[in-house]
Amino acid sequence: MTNSKKNLILITNDDGVYASGINKLIEAIAPLGEVVVVAPDKPRSGMSGAITCANPIRVSLLKDDEKDLKIYACTGTPVDCVKIGTDRLLPRKPDLLVSGINHGSNAAVSVIYSGTVGAAIEGCIIGIPSLAVSLTDNSPHADFGEAAKFGKSIAEKILKEGLPKGICLNLNVPNIPKVKGLKVGSQTAGRWTKEFEEMKDPSGKSVYWLTGDFLNDEPDNVNSDEWALANGYAALVPLYIDMTAYGFIEKIKNWEKIAGF
Amino acid sequence: MTNSKKNLILITNDDGVYASGINKLIEAIAPLGEVVVVAPDKPRSGMSGAITCANPIRVSLLKDDEKDLKIYACTGTPVDCVKIGTDRLLPRKPDLLVSGINHGSNAAVSVIYSGTVGAAIEGCIIGIPSLAVSLTDNSPHADFGEAAKFGKSIAEKILKEGLPKGICLNLNVPNIPKVKGLKVGSQTAGRWTKEFEEMKDPSGKSVYWLTGDFLNDEPDNVNSDEWALANGYAALVPLYIDMTAYGFIEKIKNWEKIAGF
Repeated sequence: MTNSKKNLILITNDDGVYASGINKLIEAIAPLGEVVVVAPDKPRSGMSGAITCANPIRVSLLKDDEKDLKIYACTGTPVDCVKIGTDRLLPRKPDLLVSGINHGSNAAVSVIYSGTVGAAIEGCIIGIPSLAVSLTDNSPHADFGEAAKFGKSIAEKILKEGLPKGICLNLNVPNIPKVKGLKVGSQTAGRWTKEFEEMKDPSGKSVYWLTGDFLNDEPDNVNSDEWALANGYAALVPLYIDMTAYGFIEKIKNWEKIAGF
Repeated sequence: MTNSKKNLILITNDDGVYASGINKLIEAIAPLGEVVVVAPDKPRSGMSGAITCANPIRVSLLKDDEKDLKIYACTGTPVDCVKIGTDRLLPRKPDLLVSGINHGSNAAVSVIYSGTVGAAIEGCIIGIPSLAVSLTDNSPHADFGEAAKFGKSIAEKILKEGLPKGICLNLNVPNIPKVKGLKVGSQTAGRWTKEFEEMKDPSGKSVYWLTGDFLNDEPDNVNSDEWALANGYAALVPLYIDMTAYGFIEKIKNWEKIAGF
């Protein structure tokens, strides 16, 4: 098979290029094609869809393994990595983007905050079939075996069947030795509460650390990603990049007639 | 009217607490109730839904005008501002959150990147009726008159009628002396292209600045926000915080049966 017929796959993450999760993902995905990694040079968790507006970014080539694997580190956010990868570093639009494997869950409302998911959404905006993969374990030395297996299988499925324009996939895998199977469902409704822990810095001034508890608004929804994870399944949620609440447009259409407009 | 019956309104932005846009917004919104501002201490454009995970944040009270107006500066992102405002600084959940007025458009796919919109999405997650307001003019001394007028009117409408759970509003106002009216519609499909400009730093190394052109995939869609703005109207788009592509779940339900799962 010539290189021109190989799948071209862009890999990124938000824990940074040296994280264990992305390196397990590279191992799992490498057999599927030519891999180019463009990932943050340091951890950028919680970066959502953030872009670097006021400063320039830099890129360093860390590894170039004769066309089958290139690894770049980038000083920007996960979304910056996807943008500069496709705009400057890759020879053509990739056939697939995989972001992860994230150290920690990106289920429920975390799709909004996650840099891992933010990168997959960016890939989708650019028109690349895109997948985010996360493991529900924050530790640096988590066991990524099951997450890598599920991530690879979904990646193969996407390469074979494609994804519609404007839809990307968010995969979360529970941190258990043997995952029961896969559930396709929805982003669990909920939010974080008691979000900050106050401490005093050495000079006695208050600082606030983000922490908190997740409040699940629908713990009994068997189609939700949180239910799947809590019950031993991997959770796959398709996400729209168009956030328009179409069903609500008609309800406020008469606001166009507010007096004075 | 006692203070306990006054509307409590949280204001934030992503251009920072000293930006002209937020100060015009405070002026416009102040007549509607008791205002608490919690905004970044410096510009944080393009921050999307980013949160500060690895460092603590700090808050400073800049102004305390006997309960009708408090202004706090926060070292965090726009989303951090909303979180710490509601978790620590406000006496109760506010009746309304308004984010802006942003210096620059947040129409189309910018809802994904914008810190201004990110803050409104966060308000919505917390359960506050939330509105983002942006003017299609990046300059620090833009004329915010029309944007403030439209923002105030929409804010009044929200206070009167409320918003459904899980939906927030994104208002963009064109930079023209007399806006023709309001159009309620959808987030324009499109993306940014030619995104980076390469320059050399003083030592001769390459750096990349984010720039680019917006490519509108549906320039003739008269229901889109970009069409409204290009034709002299303010554009109001309702956004879902649940990004699940419900219509696609059934299409990939059979992926649960991938061999090996």
